Amino acid sequence: MRIITLLTDFGLKDNFVGVIKGVILKIKPDVGIVDISHNIDAQDKFAAAFLLKASYKYFPEGTIHVIVVDPGVGAQRKIILVKTKEYYFLSPDNGILSLALKEEKIERIVSVENDKFFLKPVSDTFHGRDIFAPVAGFLSKGNKLSEFGPQVKHIEEISVPQPQKNNQKLTGQIIHIDRFGNLVTNIDIDTLQSFSKGVKIRIKGMPVDGISASYQDVGFGKPLAIIGSFGYLEIAVNGASAENYFSLRKSDKIELEEPPEEGSRKS
Amino acid sequence: MRIITLLTDFGLKDNFVGVIKGVILKIKPDVGIVDISHNIDAQDKFAAAFLLKASYKYFPEGTIHVIVVDPGVGAQRKIILVKTKEYYFLSPDNGILSLALKEEKIERIVSVENDKFFLKPVSDTFHGRDIFAPVAGFLSKGNKLSEFGPQVKHIEEISVPQPQKNNQKLTGQIIHIDRFGNLVTNIDIDTLQSFSKGVKIRIKGMPVDGISASYQDVGFGKPLAIIGSFGYLEIAVNGASAENYFSLRKSDKIELEEPPEEGSRKS
Amino acid sequence: MRIITLLTDFGLKDNFVGVIKGVILKIKPDVGIVDISHNIDAQDKFAAAFLLKASYKYFPEGTIHVIVVDPGVGAQRKIILVKTKEYYFLSPDNGILSLALKEEKIERIVSVENDKFFLKPVSDTFHGRDIFAPVAGFLSKGNKLSEFGPQVKHIEEISVPQPQKNNQKLTGQIIHIDRFGNLVTNIDIDTLQSFSKGVKIRIKGMPVDGISASYQDVGFGKPLAIIGSFGYLEIAVNGASAENYFSLRKSDKIELEEPPEEGSRKS
Repeated sequence: MRIITLLTDFGLKDNFVGVIKGVILKIKPDVGIVDISHNIDAQDKFAAAFLLKASYKYFPEGTIHVIVVDPGVGAQRKIILVKTKEYYFLSPDNGILSLALKEEKIERIVSVENDKFFLKPVSDTFHGRDIFAPVAGFLSKGNKLSEFGPQVKHIEEISVPQPQKNNQKLTGQIIHIDRFGNLVTNIDIDTLQSFSKGVKIRIKGMPVDGISASYQDVGFGKPLAIIGSFGYLEIAVNGASAENYFSLRKSDKIELEEPPEEGSRKS
Repeated sequence: MRIITLLTDFGLKDNFVGVIKGVILKIKPDVGIVDISHNIDAQDKFAAAFLLKASYKYFPEGTIHVIVVDPGVGAQRKIILVKTKEYYFLSPDNGILSLALKEEKIERIVSVENDKFFLKPVSDTFHGRDIFAPVAGFLSKGNKLSEFGPQVKHIEEISVPQPQKNNQKLTGQIIHIDRFGNLVTNIDIDTLQSFSKGVKIRIKGMPVDGISASYQDVGFGKPLAIIGSFGYLEIAVNGASAENYFSLRKSDKIELEEPPEEGSRKS
Repeated sequence: MRIITLLTDFGLKDNFVGVIKGVILKIKPDVGIVDISHNIDAQDKFAAAFLLKASYKYFPEGTIHVIVVDPGVGAQRKIILVKTKEYYFLSPDNGILSLALKEEKIERIVSVENDKFFLKPVSDTFHGRDIFAPVAGFLSKGNKLSEFGPQVKHIEEISVPQPQKNNQKLTGQIIHIDRFGNLVTNIDIDTLQSFSKGVKIRIKGMPVDGISASYQDVGFGKPLAIIGSFGYLEIAVNGASAENYFSLRKSDKIELEEPPEEGSRKS
């Protein structure tokens, strides 16, 4: 069975997501539709790009990933449909595909313009229903990329903010806070491995002890650093929320430096 | 594949929605179940009626729409099953179907009373599980309307509150606030078109500039009026929440009048 | 069609639940996946056990119930897979199956250890994705229990706290508060029936009138006691939230005693 995933900021309060599914199923009744998340903060393009990168490759080959976080709806931004070796991606051309596509071999990109695939009249405010849903439906039914619009070469980009190196000190930042209050930073495993003699971590001036292998490496209610499931360094608290413990929010800073003597790395 | 949609105020915190799906799938394992929303404010019948109207016709012919917002559960209200030309609707008889049915050709209405289709014992508090779910399951399996109970002629009604006209001034109200903080009013396109010379809009005493064609017609963070995807005039803010910007809530007023000289309509 | 249910504390903000579904569908594309809830309070094992007990048996025979509320992820706790006469249960071995299993005939329990069924590398923080999802996928595909690991005899237990009897007075507590603010107590129907002469209920010192048959037995906005859909005594308010009305929370007390003269039981 063909799968379509949905990643949006439409929330689950209104009927928006249900209607999108209705439109798809009216075109292709036996497609499987999976929600990745609809609770992206309104218009937070980076969060969409970040969660898409952390999700898309867990799905079966041929999956159609539809991402609608679209502050430019009704204005001039393009809608793009991308085919890679294993997947399809459909989204506004505002950079939300760029973190995922960095890892993929792109085969073709088209600008979605053929309005024979759109619901009419196309509203000015809900392209999720009027364009994204029917295009995903027809794509899952077998229509070819070239039928949806002309090929394009360049698409918009978003980047993960890079940590700053200053002498022995590396300053990163919080790029995502998950449901448990874990603070996901922009410091990846490769960067961490450059600290060959271990690492001292400070967050809001408070030291965090080395890198733990599990939440339970420290006492209940104590903070720790761990390589999280996103592949980045996370700050967590065993049995509680690091977001509340440290009173931190997205973009706040985290500092790493090599210890003066031997390392304190635990695992 | 037959589709059943669910629109309820059961929320996603408890197991209520999952259990309803289990009961349906135990009767008809290959039916497709789609959530329209479960986050209707508790017992808000108008919100259910409004979102149903804005959703039902996007689904495939033959879809069974199940709506459970049911302050009268366990008391005397009927449960009704309605067949229209294209759809089935199952809900408590408390008016929540009336906005959708106004647009549909009704073929038959029955009062659901045949308890051979119910889970036993029927609880006093969760007819979603004990009556609505199994009835939807058996209906999707092919049982006929007449098997569920006797025909009825009249059902309860809910109306959209109508805007009030006073000289040149029209006073509407906010009937829905969506996840983005857009303020949906009860002023529809037809009413707007009666303002042939353009329209001056005031909300909480503050003027809003004409009718925009997209959110980006005004500067970032500025308010606008737009015909939204529900088909009604909406007040929005480009890139932000009009609900927060104006500090408004449901039932608050909006005023429209013809401009003294030439119109300010933009699009 | 085989059904897999998911009951977790992963929330719907991140991509966690979507990714779990992707992993399952990559292994078994035509399985049906149903959410019971993902909004269990973070790491609240009792809530998971309670909602599982109230849900599992509404699903078709052969359903695989996957429950991931897992404060011990990455540490020493086992992962168990249980086959009963009608269902499969997969969860961390931390007691969250024990309320459901009390009602079931257990056929076999294995400790899930065969990492050929795991996603590699197995993260330290997201066994939902790396272990629970693929194991559920392969189980739905037909792999046998014995392939996943060695048989075990004992698993961890959680209990519902028991009401305390003291002379004629029974003191119970609130064990769950639902989306409507209904206060679910630990007083079951059998216990209630021991009050043969009726029962006087006090909650936070305020009397509640007998046991009602429906919410509408009392005036709008008035409190009542009712046997809820979980099979326990619940305190509710007609048309409103008992949680707000009484300002109560989980673990707060409720007192029952026999009335001095004739009973006040209504139904």
